[in-house]
Amino acid sequence: MKGAESLVRTLVNGGVDVCFMNPGTSEIHFVDALDRVRDMRGVPCLFEGVASGAADGYARMAGKPACTLFHLGPGLGNAMANLHNAFRAWVPMVNVVGDHATYHRRYDPPLAADIEMLARQYSKFLRTSVASADLGRDCAEAIAAANAAPTGIATVIVPTDVQWGEDGRVADVPKIAEAPMPDGARVDGAAALLRNGRRTAILLGPRMAEGDALMTAGRIATATGATLMVPFGFARATRGAGLPPVERVAYVVDQALKQLREYEQFILVGADQPVAFFAYPGKPSVLTPEGAVIHILAERSENCADALTALADALGATNAQPRLQQAQKTAAPSGPITIDGLATAVAAVLPERAIAVDESITSGRGLIAATKGCPQHDWLVNTGGSIGVGLPFAVGAAIACPDRPVLSLESDGSGMYTLQALWTAAREGLAVTAVIFANRSYAILKGELSAAVENPGPRALDMLDIGRPDLDWVALAKGMGVNARRVTTLESLAREIQRGIESAEPNLIEVPL
Amino acid sequence: MKGAESLVRTLVNGGVDVCFMNPGTSEIHFVDALDRVRDMRGVPCLFEGVASGAADGYARMAGKPACTLFHLGPGLGNAMANLHNAFRAWVPMVNVVGDHATYHRRYDPPLAADIEMLARQYSKFLRTSVASADLGRDCAEAIAAANAAPTGIATVIVPTDVQWGEDGRVADVPKIAEAPMPDGARVDGAAALLRNGRRTAILLGPRMAEGDALMTAGRIATATGATLMVPFGFARATRGAGLPPVERVAYVVDQALKQLREYEQFILVGADQPVAFFAYPGKPSVLTPEGAVIHILAERSENCADALTALADALGATNAQPRLQQAQKTAAPSGPITIDGLATAVAAVLPERAIAVDESITSGRGLIAATKGCPQHDWLVNTGGSIGVGLPFAVGAAIACPDRPVLSLESDGSGMYTLQALWTAAREGLAVTAVIFANRSYAILKGELSAAVENPGPRALDMLDIGRPDLDWVALAKGMGVNARRVTTLESLAREIQRGIESAEPNLIEVPL
Repeated sequence: MKGAESLVRTLVNGGVDVCFMNPGTSEIHFVDALDRVRDMRGVPCLFEGVASGAADGYARMAGKPACTLFHLGPGLGNAMANLHNAFRAWVPMVNVVGDHATYHRRYDPPLAADIEMLARQYSKFLRTSVASADLGRDCAEAIAAANAAPTGIATVIVPTDVQWGEDGRVADVPKIAEAPMPDGARVDGAAALLRNGRRTAILLGPRMAEGDALMTAGRIATATGATLMVPFGFARATRGAGLPPVERVAYVVDQALKQLREYEQFILVGADQPVAFFAYPGKPSVLTPEGAVIHILAERSENCADALTALADALGATNAQPRLQQAQKTAAPSGPITIDGLATAVAAVLPERAIAVDESITSGRGLIAATKGCPQHDWLVNTGGSIGVGLPFAVGAAIACPDRPVLSLESDGSGMYTLQALWTAAREGLAVTAVIFANRSYAILKGELSAAVENPGPRALDMLDIGRPDLDWVALAKGMGVNARRVTTLESLAREIQRGIESAEPNLIEVPL
Repeated sequence: MKGAESLVRTLVNGGVDVCFMNPGTSEIHFVDALDRVRDMRGVPCLFEGVASGAADGYARMAGKPACTLFHLGPGLGNAMANLHNAFRAWVPMVNVVGDHATYHRRYDPPLAADIEMLARQYSKFLRTSVASADLGRDCAEAIAAANAAPTGIATVIVPTDVQWGEDGRVADVPKIAEAPMPDGARVDGAAALLRNGRRTAILLGPRMAEGDALMTAGRIATATGATLMVPFGFARATRGAGLPPVERVAYVVDQALKQLREYEQFILVGADQPVAFFAYPGKPSVLTPEGAVIHILAERSENCADALTALADALGATNAQPRLQQAQKTAAPSGPITIDGLATAVAAVLPERAIAVDESITSGRGLIAATKGCPQHDWLVNTGGSIGVGLPFAVGAAIACPDRPVLSLESDGSGMYTLQALWTAAREGLAVTAVIFANRSYAILKGELSAAVENPGPRALDMLDIGRPDLDWVALAKGMGVNARRVTTLESLAREIQRGIESAEPNLIEVPL
C-alpha cells in the first residue's frame, strides 16, 4: 500500500473523515488515495484560507477534527490567517502539508520553503514524515495530539516520495490520556469565592458554553448569583430559550471596563483573563478591575468540564434548577435597513437548531442582544481576530451538521478575504444562507482612526473605503454559482433569510447599509 | 512628529512612494500619516496576497521597491504565498507589518503572533522597531537592504506605540555598497568555455534578460554561438522584434531534459543550475546533462551586468552586432477557441510596450513561442510556483508603468486565489486587460495525476475539477466593478483584447475552453 493510502486510511481510522483541500503536484498521491478510501470525504476549496477556516468551523460543530491538505509552504501560508483563528480557539485539526521528495529538497527547487518554520507556531504537534512505513504512525500520533487536552492543531509534513512509497502501514491512534482534574484546592477555592458574597463572574473557555458543561455552569451561577461570561472571541456558544444566559465580554475597551467593573472576583474555566484586543494611549491592557481576584478553576490542559461538575458538587448545586433564558418572540420589523432593525430581523426568523456564524463586525453589533431569547441555536464567532473566517466557517459547520441550517452573518470587508468559500458551498450543495452587510467600508477602522487622531484626513479615510467601486455581492455570488438577491427593507431581509433557510440550498442576501 | 509619519517620510525619502496596503487597527497611524505625506501613494487591497503580489509586479517593472502595509501576523500570513514568489525572484520590497503596542504584547491578546518567525524566511532584513526615535533609521536600513545586491525583501515590524510616539525622526537611506565584480578568473573561465567550440547555454538570472544586460548577452551569444536562456520561472524578460532571442527552460521534465541535452556547458549569470520543479519516480532532479560543465560567471550577490560586459570585452564582442529577433506579423486567427489558436490571437494583437503577465499554466503553453516576433514588450511570469500572482502582478505593473498597456494572461484556477485584485484595478482605473482562460479544472494537476497513477479514479479527478458549478468570470468581474465579456471565437478574442487595451481601462475577457 502506498504511503498516501496508509495516511488516508489512518485518518479515517482515527475518526478524521473530512478533508478540506487545495492540493498540488506534491499531494497528488493523497488525492489518488480517495478512490481507494471511500470513507474520506474530500472537499475542494479554491483557496487554502477557505480550507483552514472550514476545518475550524467543522471542528467547532462536530467536536472532532477535520483534516486539511495543503501544497507546500505557500499553500500553508495561504491557510495561516485562519489557522491563527483556530489556534486561538483551541480547535482540533490535522493539517497535512505536502513537500518535495526527500531527495529533491537539496536542490532547492522553486517551491521549496522551510515548512516547519511556517507551521511551528500554530502546531502543538509538528512532524515531517521521512519514510512511507512511518507515515501511518506519524499521522496517528498527530490525530492523538489534536484530540488530547488542550485540543489543537497537529501538522504532518509529507514529502512526495513518502506518499508514493509502497510500504505504507495503517496505524491505530494511540489512546489519549484523560485530561487531569485540577487540584482539589482550586475547586475548594472557587467554591469559597462563590460563597463569600462578593460579585463574581465565571469566564467560560472553549466548549464550556455548550452541552452539559453549560448546564452545570448555569446551576452554579443560579445557586451563587454569579454571572456566566464568555470572552469577546469565544469559540462556540449554545444559546437561546431554555439555556443558561451567558454574557459576552465587550470589544470596545471602555465598554468592557464598565461591564467588568461590576465584579470583584473572576473564576476562569479554561479561559484567559480578559485583555483588550488592542492597546490605546492612556487605556489599560487588562480589562478586569485593579485588585480583582482572579482564580483559575481549571486550565485548558485540565478537565474543565469535570472541574465544573466538582464545583457544582462542592456548592451543593448539582441538582439545582438553573435559571434559564426565557423565550422571546420577536416581531418581524419593517422599513428601511438600520443596524438595530437588521438585528431584530435576524432575531425574528432565527430557527431552532440554526448555526449562526457571526463575522458581522460593526454592522452586527446588535445581533447578540437581539437573539438571546430565540429558539435554541449555536453561535460561532471569529476567535483570533483575523478577519475572513466567516464564510469558511459556514462551509465547515454545514458539512459537520448537514441537517441544520447555517446562517452566515458577514460584513463585506471581511467577506472579501475568503469569498471563494461560496463556490465550495455551491459545489457541495450546503444549506448556507449568507447575509452580507454591505456598508462599503472598513467601518471599524474608520472608528479606530477617528478615535486615534483628531480630524482624520481624506486620504486616510479613502484607504478604509471599499465602496469605490461598490462591490456587487449579487454578481459575486452568481459568479460562484450561488443564488443571490439584494434587499433594501427589513421585511424583505427577514423574508429572504427565512426563504433561504427553508430552501436548504446555498444562497446569499446582500444588505446595503 | 509621530513615528508613523517619520516612517512614511523616510520611505518616500528612499524612493519608496507606493504602498500596497491592507491595514488594521495597529496600522492606523501609518494610514493617518498619508494626509501629511502626500508623495506616498496608498493603494488599498482587499486581501494581503494582492498587496504582496502587486508589490512584486511593481518592483519587476519599476526596478525599485514598493512597500506593503500588513496587519500583524495573520496579515503577513495572507501575504506569504506571493512573498514566496517575490523571494524566489530576488525582488526588492519593503514590508511594514504592524504589531501590538510593546507593553501590550505581554498580555498575549487574541491577534498576537510571533511575526518575526513568520517573516524570517523570506526577509533578508528583519527588524522589530522598538522606539519611535529609531523607526526612521530602521526603515532607512530596510530600504538599503532591499536595494543592495542581491535585492530582496526587507521587513520592518512596527508596534502601534512606536507609530504613535511623538519623537519620530526622518532618516536618510544609507549608501549601498556596489555589488562586487566576480573574480577575473571567472570571466576568463567563461570566455575560455565560449571559445572551446562546445555547445554552451548562458542562463540569465533576474534583471539579465532586460535592458543593456540583455543586449550585452546577445552580443556574447552571437559572437560565440551560445544560446541565451532563462529559467522556467524567470522574473522578467524584455522580448520581441529587435531584441536578442532568449529561450525558456521547459517545465515538463522530459522536455527540459531534451532541451538541455544539446548543451555541454552552462554559464550561469545570477541564475541557478536548472532543476526540476517537482521530483518524479525514476526521473532526475537536475535538468542539465550528466557531466556538463557548470560555470558560474557571477553570483546574484555580485555585479552580474558588469560581469557580462567584462565577458563581452574578453571575447572582443563589445561592439559586435547581436543577432536579433526578426519581426513576425501574425495574422489574427478565426474559428473556435483552441490552445494554439489563443496563442496566435494574443500574438496578433500584442502591442508595442505591452506588459504581458503570464500565469496561464496549461492553457498558455503556446504563448511564449507565438509571441517571440511581436513588437517589443515585457513578459512576467510566476517565479516561485505559488499560483495566484498573476492578477496582483498586473495591478503592480500597471501602477509602475501607467503609460503602458498590461495584458494579464491568467488561468481560472490560479485567478481565483487572488481575484480581489480586480477591485483594486477598478478603483485605481488601471489599464489592465485580464484574459481568463477558463478550462474549469486544475488541468495541470489532472496531467500530474495521470502521470503518477494508472487509471485515475473519479473521486480523485473530481477534486481537480473546478467546473461544478462553473465559475462565471463575467459576473465575478462585474461584482468588483470591472467590465467583462465572454468570447467563444478566436476573432472575438483578438478583437476584445485589442479593444480592452485601447480602452486603457480595467476589463476582463473570459475565454471558456
